[in-house]
Amino acid sequence: MGSPFDVPVAELRRRTSLKWHTYPQDVLPAFVAEMDVRPLDAVVSAVHGALLSGDTGYEAGPASPRGTAYAEAFADFASRHHGWDVPVDRTRLVPDVMLGAVEVIRLVSAPGDAVVINPPVYPPFRSFLEHAGRRVVTAPLTPAGRLDLDALDRAFAGARAYLLCHPHNPTGTLHTADELRAVGDLATRHGVRVVADEIHAPLFVGDEAFVPTTTVIPDAIALHSASKAFNLAGLKTAVAVPGPAADDLTHLPEIVGHGVSHVASIAHQAAYRHGHAWLADVRASIRRHQQMVDDALTERLPSARWRRPEATYFAWLDVRDTPAVAGSGTDPARLLLHRGRLAVNPGPTFGDEGAGHVRLNLATSPEILADALDRLVTTLAARA
Amino acid sequence: MGSPFDVPVAELRRRTSLKWHTYPQDVLPAFVAEMDVRPLDAVVSAVHGALLSGDTGYEAGPASPRGTAYAEAFADFASRHHGWDVPVDRTRLVPDVMLGAVEVIRLVSAPGDAVVINPPVYPPFRSFLEHAGRRVVTAPLTPAGRLDLDALDRAFAGARAYLLCHPHNPTGTLHTADELRAVGDLATRHGVRVVADEIHAPLFVGDEAFVPTTTVIPDAIALHSASKAFNLAGLKTAVAVPGPAADDLTHLPEIVGHGVSHVASIAHQAAYRHGHAWLADVRASIRRHQQMVDDALTERLPSARWRRPEATYFAWLDVRDTPAVAGSGTDPARLLLHRGRLAVNPGPTFGDEGAGHVRLNLATSPEILADALDRLVTTLAARA
Repeated sequence: MGSPFDVPVAELRRRTSLKWHTYPQDVLPAFVAEMDVRPLDAVVSAVHGALLSGDTGYEAGPASPRGTAYAEAFADFASRHHGWDVPVDRTRLVPDVMLGAVEVIRLVSAPGDAVVINPPVYPPFRSFLEHAGRRVVTAPLTPAGRLDLDALDRAFAGARAYLLCHPHNPTGTLHTADELRAVGDLATRHGVRVVADEIHAPLFVGDEAFVPTTTVIPDAIALHSASKAFNLAGLKTAVAVPGPAADDLTHLPEIVGHGVSHVASIAHQAAYRHGHAWLADVRASIRRHQQMVDDALTERLPSARWRRPEATYFAWLDVRDTPAVAGSGTDPARLLLHRGRLAVNPGPTFGDEGAGHVRLNLATSPEILADALDRLVTTLAARA
Repeated sequence: MGSPFDVPVAELRRRTSLKWHTYPQDVLPAFVAEMDVRPLDAVVSAVHGALLSGDTGYEAGPASPRGTAYAEAFADFASRHHGWDVPVDRTRLVPDVMLGAVEVIRLVSAPGDAVVINPPVYPPFRSFLEHAGRRVVTAPLTPAGRLDLDALDRAFAGARAYLLCHPHNPTGTLHTADELRAVGDLATRHGVRVVADEIHAPLFVGDEAFVPTTTVIPDAIALHSASKAFNLAGLKTAVAVPGPAADDLTHLPEIVGHGVSHVASIAHQAAYRHGHAWLADVRASIRRHQQMVDDALTERLPSARWRRPEATYFAWLDVRDTPAVAGSGTDPARLLLHRGRLAVNPGPTFGDEGAGHVRLNLATSPEILADALDRLVTTLAARA
């Protein structure tokens, strides 16, 4: 049956999405969070069925009997994968995770208020918050890629909200229940509200399970979507899930739901309901791909450092001490693009803390990943 | 070959979208802007192809060679249908028309600034502007449903922007080149920037052609999408088109493009490129449906008044003087829902000026429209 990642590069180049059409053909793309996967059959069928029957109107609203279809599918999935009892009737659909996160931030803070983030972190966190008129305050992760409770304590002073990335992008850190509990205590002490982007939740690949933020921090609000784990960024929608002590979503303006794509909702429901085996294959492949990274670096680029991620399909590589980068002052992503013809995400786009790092996308076939690792290792092992 | 509106009611009720799942089964829905159409084959094929090949990642950005694919398809369509030379390279993709309009309003005004609208108008205009922290100032349409230049002159004093609805929803008014020129002169005089929601542009059904706002007002910015004319509200995306003297879109934050759905873009491109005959059939049907409204009101409810719309698939009915409504103080949409089991859009949701009016959706089969008109006429002709 093969892995969902068995897609030849020639076929991938016929896709019209961002990953395969940003750089010239001789550049191998391993940057943006698209997966080089075959789609889940159930998603293809559900979307085709919707199109054939002309079911391309508006998503039914909260008042409709159909208004909770997405949340119900997500709740079944979350129960099975996270042991989480999602309060379906208290959820709200939003256009996508980032637009939803911003709308929730608007509910729990005012323009000019400080909102805390943990760099290195998904670059749009800063841009969206600033675009929403919030002041961004940083509490960088520890060198080990964990939440830094002392830094959070300092950052929370005077802040109103905290945009948590869980699992953390780019490091793949899965925050533990103990860490989340400590965050919740600090947040309560400082009057800070926790908003959690949990889009990578289905992609835990280590020994630990994902702990939903709202099960530990009762007044947190989390954002979920099938778009990341099932490669549906091109069919976006998301759901906001409040903790038991968060009633803010009752104040979410009705118009926020207007941006929701009904066809995306249909696609995501199919993924949540029928994607269990497909997702298991994807996770198993990512684990094997992590091992390939480990082997390549150990054998051929021992000066590079990384921690095997507990979640996500990224590798966050610290290549500061590699021969090509050490002392050169050059961003390694530039070196890789220009010399290695490999496109990765530059570390500094995730925050100053990302200097000397790159984010490599492992969601591809073993053959393509081997090619990417070869380009990376060859380029960075060569003295500048 | 039949009209795209040849869809039996039993089939429509199997759709899962808002229109067919907000009210109980005995209520005939003729409210929200969904069309009871068979889909365009080219759209079905394009979306199915994208799903089958896993082309469900991110829409390529402006820097990519693929980044103008949507704008190019729209430009070909606009050239053919509106004789409009769209400046492809200066356009920007946005998640949908309303989110895009708000982002453009953010570019040309500051929080607290006044923005002018023309009630009765699409209800989200007010809600989205207020949610964006703008102060809404109204310049109601004239009783004949035209732009009121004196009211605009007054409203523009102290305002910063103007959200124009062209063609106008709910009245179906198509603003003339002369009207737009006068609006442009007033706007220039008052330092007001014109932002035009032109989502209904392909749906002109009268003798006059649609005149793109930016061809008359050089510093205006217009929003277009295939979602309305091709019934793709469930697959949303849109394009912002600047006039020759509007360079604001160069300042649109890159993150605004993150909300764009790649699969929606693929669907819309297919509609713009291959939907000409389908759209011609839709427009011809709407003209016949307008005649059905005319006949029903003339023969059976002469106390109702309407003007045959020049665009859109709506009928905006003034039923204040009908036997059931006159002197009753009841919103006619409530009467129609509770007595007639017909769901229409209540006039007052479009602004106070909509009191005593209802918006009826004509985008359905002649059989269903006949049923809707029968329910409407029977209910409103009966004395309260």
